[in-house]
Amino acid sequence: MSGTDHGKDEGWQGPVPTFILVRPQMGENIGAAARAMWNFGLDRMRIVAPRDGWPNPKAVAMASGAGRVLDHVQVSDTTAGALEDLNFVFATTARNRDLTKTVMTPERAMEHARAMISKGQKVGVMFGAERAGLENEDIVQANVLISVPVNPAFASLNLAQCVLLTAYEWRRQVGDVVPEIIDRGLTRYAEKIEVTKLTERLEERLDQIGFFWPEQKRGSMVENIRNMMSRLPLSDSDIRTLHGIFKALAERDPKDYKNGR
Amino acid sequence: MSGTDHGKDEGWQGPVPTFILVRPQMGENIGAAARAMWNFGLDRMRIVAPRDGWPNPKAVAMASGAGRVLDHVQVSDTTAGALEDLNFVFATTARNRDLTKTVMTPERAMEHARAMISKGQKVGVMFGAERAGLENEDIVQANVLISVPVNPAFASLNLAQCVLLTAYEWRRQVGDVVPEIIDRGLTRYAEKIEVTKLTERLEERLDQIGFFWPEQKRGSMVENIRNMMSRLPLSDSDIRTLHGIFKALAERDPKDYKNGR
Repeated sequence: MSGTDHGKDEGWQGPVPTFILVRPQMGENIGAAARAMWNFGLDRMRIVAPRDGWPNPKAVAMASGAGRVLDHVQVSDTTAGALEDLNFVFATTARNRDLTKTVMTPERAMEHARAMISKGQKVGVMFGAERAGLENEDIVQANVLISVPVNPAFASLNLAQCVLLTAYEWRRQVGDVVPEIIDRGLTRYAEKIEVTKLTERLEERLDQIGFFWPEQKRGSMVENIRNMMSRLPLSDSDIRTLHGIFKALAERDPKDYKNGR
Repeated sequence: MSGTDHGKDEGWQGPVPTFILVRPQMGENIGAAARAMWNFGLDRMRIVAPRDGWPNPKAVAMASGAGRVLDHVQVSDTTAGALEDLNFVFATTARNRDLTKTVMTPERAMEHARAMISKGQKVGVMFGAERAGLENEDIVQANVLISVPVNPAFASLNLAQCVLLTAYEWRRQVGDVVPEIIDRGLTRYAEKIEVTKLTERLEERLDQIGFFWPEQKRGSMVENIRNMMSRLPLSDSDIRTLHGIFKALAERDPKDYKNGR
């Protein structure tokens, strides 16, 4: 999916959580994480002890289009250093830990994040390195764990995917997104009178060709057609189209219709 | 994140939506889509006109661990052929279309999918090729569009990411996932009497060293400590730990305490 519109940059402001990548290895994965974040309007990234140093040209190349995330990145030597000013920190993890710690779904975690951020708290989410994930020494610094409810028989989210799902949940929680736009692109729905006239005209034509047979079923057949027509989300131009179709079909020789069945 | 447990394969059964990749190009992306699906327990994939034919060794290599998705894949020459037996089809798209069509968030769409599938309907979701997305000739065959609410200034979800988010939403809708596991790993919370005794012992020790000063503040200071102690989610072993800490601190020479502040 792509459909970037640089004219629509406003409206995605406001405080957001900080995402902290702990000891990431490949620059490409840092760049992919930046892209995943910026897809959902998150631009605050911190990095703890990146294996290949910083800045990292491969991260910048991969982040193409989401460079603003890397422009403002803060790099620390230690996890504690990256968390210093934060009020509440989540740690993403898949493995069970022996540590006593509350575990939330991304959904619940981002609900909490929204509540805390709306009160001016600074919230962070830690993500571990590509293979190893977070170490216990990182985990103990978090308030709460986030565990994505993946298939217990196949849990293989990579760094950028884990970032993506968390960022998506953040945006889902705070976003003012209309969940359903019914019939986008429609100029207007037909007025009921237009639907009624189309239906009546159709019934006339069907009567002319002896469609309503046997006679005792006429009532229910008409009712079904009327119900169907009123149920369809027809536009004004659909009405014109259907008038044309019915006319074209009906004005064949009636014998054609009967023979053609 | 990783944490696969092949012993936990049960419980993820039941009917699921079919994901249809339309004219995908690189085999790696087909494999990545299979992985994204299987992370959330989806294993029904169909492919329309894969550019590099089928089977595709690069897809298989990339799908490693999610091979069962590709084992059962159905390949069609046309989109219509892939949709034949489906009752309801979604099409994922980012770009606005001129076509009149209802647009849903992934969340709303998977709510509908759940409702339809629970009534025995067969539901599909179409995903377009890596760059171009779906063509209008594909879109017109869908009942409803799905649009992920990405940053309007940066919309760059790739095929596997779009599949991932949709699969995640499916699982979120149907999953019986506990949103929050409070203090996972805890053996048991301390009994109230244990907390009370710890607090009383602490107060005694603080009294001995003259902590509650000035005297008129004693009441509120004690109240604050009692409130804090009862608010903390302490385990039985935390209680033992804290008794040890308080004892160790208190049994220093009281002068040390006063001088050390």
